[in-house]
Amino acid sequence: VTPDHADRPPAGFDTVSFLSDLGSVDESAGVVRSVLADLAPHVRIIDLTHEIPPFDVRSGSLALARAVPYLTAGVVLAAVDAAGGGGRPAVAIEVAGGRGVFVGPDNGLLAPAVALAGGAERCVTLVRTEHHLEAPGATFPCRDVYAPVVAALCTGVDLADLGDPVDPGDLLPAVLPLPRDDGGMLVGEVMWIDRFGNCQLNIGPEDVAPWGDRARLHLTDGVRNVPIVDGYHRLGVGAPGLVVDATGMLSIAVERSSAARELGLAVGDPVSLGPADGEGPGGAPVTTPVATPVTTPVTLRPSGAAG
Amino acid sequence: VTPDHADRPPAGFDTVSFLSDLGSVDESAGVVRSVLADLAPHVRIIDLTHEIPPFDVRSGSLALARAVPYLTAGVVLAAVDAAGGGGRPAVAIEVAGGRGVFVGPDNGLLAPAVALAGGAERCVTLVRTEHHLEAPGATFPCRDVYAPVVAALCTGVDLADLGDPVDPGDLLPAVLPLPRDDGGMLVGEVMWIDRFGNCQLNIGPEDVAPWGDRARLHLTDGVRNVPIVDGYHRLGVGAPGLVVDATGMLSIAVERSSAARELGLAVGDPVSLGPADGEGPGGAPVTTPVATPVTTPVTLRPSGAAG
Amino acid sequence: VTPDHADRPPAGFDTVSFLSDLGSVDESAGVVRSVLADLAPHVRIIDLTHEIPPFDVRSGSLALARAVPYLTAGVVLAAVDAAGGGGRPAVAIEVAGGRGVFVGPDNGLLAPAVALAGGAERCVTLVRTEHHLEAPGATFPCRDVYAPVVAALCTGVDLADLGDPVDPGDLLPAVLPLPRDDGGMLVGEVMWIDRFGNCQLNIGPEDVAPWGDRARLHLTDGVRNVPIVDGYHRLGVGAPGLVVDATGMLSIAVERSSAARELGLAVGDPVSLGPADGEGPGGAPVTTPVATPVTTPVTLRPSGAAG
Repeated sequence: VTPDHADRPPAGFDTVSFLSDLGSVDESAGVVRSVLADLAPHVRIIDLTHEIPPFDVRSGSLALARAVPYLTAGVVLAAVDAAGGGGRPAVAIEVAGGRGVFVGPDNGLLAPAVALAGGAERCVTLVRTEHHLEAPGATFPCRDVYAPVVAALCTGVDLADLGDPVDPGDLLPAVLPLPRDDGGMLVGEVMWIDRFGNCQLNIGPEDVAPWGDRARLHLTDGVRNVPIVDGYHRLGVGAPGLVVDATGMLSIAVERSSAARELGLAVGDPVSLGPADGEGPGGAPVTTPVATPVTTPVTLRPSGAAG
Repeated sequence: VTPDHADRPPAGFDTVSFLSDLGSVDESAGVVRSVLADLAPHVRIIDLTHEIPPFDVRSGSLALARAVPYLTAGVVLAAVDAAGGGGRPAVAIEVAGGRGVFVGPDNGLLAPAVALAGGAERCVTLVRTEHHLEAPGATFPCRDVYAPVVAALCTGVDLADLGDPVDPGDLLPAVLPLPRDDGGMLVGEVMWIDRFGNCQLNIGPEDVAPWGDRARLHLTDGVRNVPIVDGYHRLGVGAPGLVVDATGMLSIAVERSSAARELGLAVGDPVSLGPADGEGPGGAPVTTPVATPVTTPVTLRPSGAAG
Repeated sequence: VTPDHADRPPAGFDTVSFLSDLGSVDESAGVVRSVLADLAPHVRIIDLTHEIPPFDVRSGSLALARAVPYLTAGVVLAAVDAAGGGGRPAVAIEVAGGRGVFVGPDNGLLAPAVALAGGAERCVTLVRTEHHLEAPGATFPCRDVYAPVVAALCTGVDLADLGDPVDPGDLLPAVLPLPRDDGGMLVGEVMWIDRFGNCQLNIGPEDVAPWGDRARLHLTDGVRNVPIVDGYHRLGVGAPGLVVDATGMLSIAVERSSAARELGLAVGDPVSLGPADGEGPGGAPVTTPVATPVTTPVTLRPSGAAG
């Protein structure tokens, strides 16, 4: 065998990581687990979450991307707004020399995760209906298309047998906001609010490193200097600050409380950061934040491939 | 062995499907999983949902019935209003030539699922306390009675050893509403609202087939003509319609939004359907909907057995 | 081998019971499950609950203690307020002759469960970073410290290799309220409200046994005589009563309804019990309840050890 082949696992997978917007209030996610267990009994299913807000492809894509570095080799089944989307096709995307496959809708949900996993290597649209379940209605692709296709992959069916090949460059990219430099200030936004009310920004600690251990935080409700720390318990009680969070980004946080509630923040809200007062180079006056979002497409091409 | 016996699996089961109203906010469902894992370590547990509203036997019975066609052979542990019910007994019901057993309260919860699985073949009330856990209190039968009994079944104990035989015809039937024909209109109701706000009716596409691809939808807030389609994305943006859903019934839906919220619908609300205006045979005037519910018992007798 | 050693299991564990305040609305608990599955693929994970209210160490400690009698031998991973706490160390605590290990923060969360399991036998602080994950930020110890340490224990690493030994008597105790006798009345409080609205007290049936099958219930909204029964269905419809619940404590309950909602009760509310009117010994006048809380530390020393 060549080194390339040696790197490829034996046919099939034994782990499925599962993320969706199906919720937990009814049996939907459970039925998908049942189909998987029935068709691929050897598989271990790891539920990531099923509480992605309905139809919220961006939130789902961010949750999946945050999880990717910690996933076990195997198949990722991701379904958000899977039945909507004006007929966006279902796809399976192979990554990492065949050590992982993402299965889900081609609506941008998978793009950041696939990019983090090194980019799409092989990709098919799931049009071979002999691998799907017959169903009394067409509105539950996660049960009738994704789950049986995932089971087929787990039992050793090759990706190429599941549908028609598609160029990874033709997949829908994700559109994620990048922070923007505005006269020495960084204009970003709230990307995610966790259960504790910490508000993750699309700004990382390296972006604010020149300012030292403090920054000026501009929210719609006002402006304040805040510390930049590496743990919630390093914040003063009741006072907001910027914490380097578990994914390495900056989060606005309040120790033992919810920054989202205390500061009235929601996902998508504009946030600007600048050097703390009197600490900027040259004492340049701080401009008013202008929350013009800047977005950038995240494509699914293999890393290293030409754009 | 006779063909009949050949059909019977070896003693025991390796999959438990678990549905309850225990919720997820405390450790209750987890403790039941622990008891199962402790007493039958080889078993795989598939959680269907634990968010059936407290005491809501009808919602639980419908969720279980929707799941039944997709369940793996094995034991189904279903507990809704299990500790209440004025002392309704706990039962185990064998179906499908021994390939499945339902364990839960005899309060109607299991009836539609058992009927869909072909009807009850053997049934016992769970009175053999040697198969139960000793407990400091009697209010958690799911932990103390159902879970150890399910574990016993999974490890090969025969149904007959778990309690006293009972005639399936003596089990409490479910009482489900049937749609009613009222002068050419179908009078039904909302049976289930999923996480996305789609409102499933007790009316199927075959009931409205004579009217073509449109129908007149009568809600308490007004009357409108709506399309009948086979996918949410076939609806116009923002306009409600009838979609053949994943269980083959008609659901009132709004593309990428919640029909329940936009139309103010709740489970149990009356809904009437008639031919779309000007499209009915003979242009007969549409009568005002009268929401008189009609119910029918779902018994647990084997299919083919005389009523 | 000596009898003592014969009692010790072979190295490693195959079950992890997992309780946290991580919630289910994002991928956090799922990522922890992924890390466990990746590092210890043979392990079965039993989720107890992840819906402990954020930072609510007392609620988490009570839920864990209620579950302990039903847990399978193995490792318990418990994380509530794990990233806060002003730098409380992470610990691993061995119990029951090595048949169980608790891993979590030393903030009182584990204390009641460890006490119920017989007390701490060996204990280390988790300072050996070679057993942790490298992480882009320090705010997710459940993912980066607890999960890999739990996986190490499951694959046979000895507790002593995970960190520095610590005296169990130096661990932070839990502080739980005890009922107080006030002139023949018992002054207690609501410890837990389950999904059905039953309000568990810190008062057991043995405490009220002298009063027979009725008691006088003093709430902030008034005083009433109520029955003491052993099942919800023994209560009159709509009338509150005291039920011996599944953990052997008294719960205020209303049959098929929520006592918490109907009586306006919340966790921590004061509740007093006395003999029912006219039924007390000597007809002594009932005093007004005074809700002075009494607390007692629950230490983690082995049972039998001197305080």
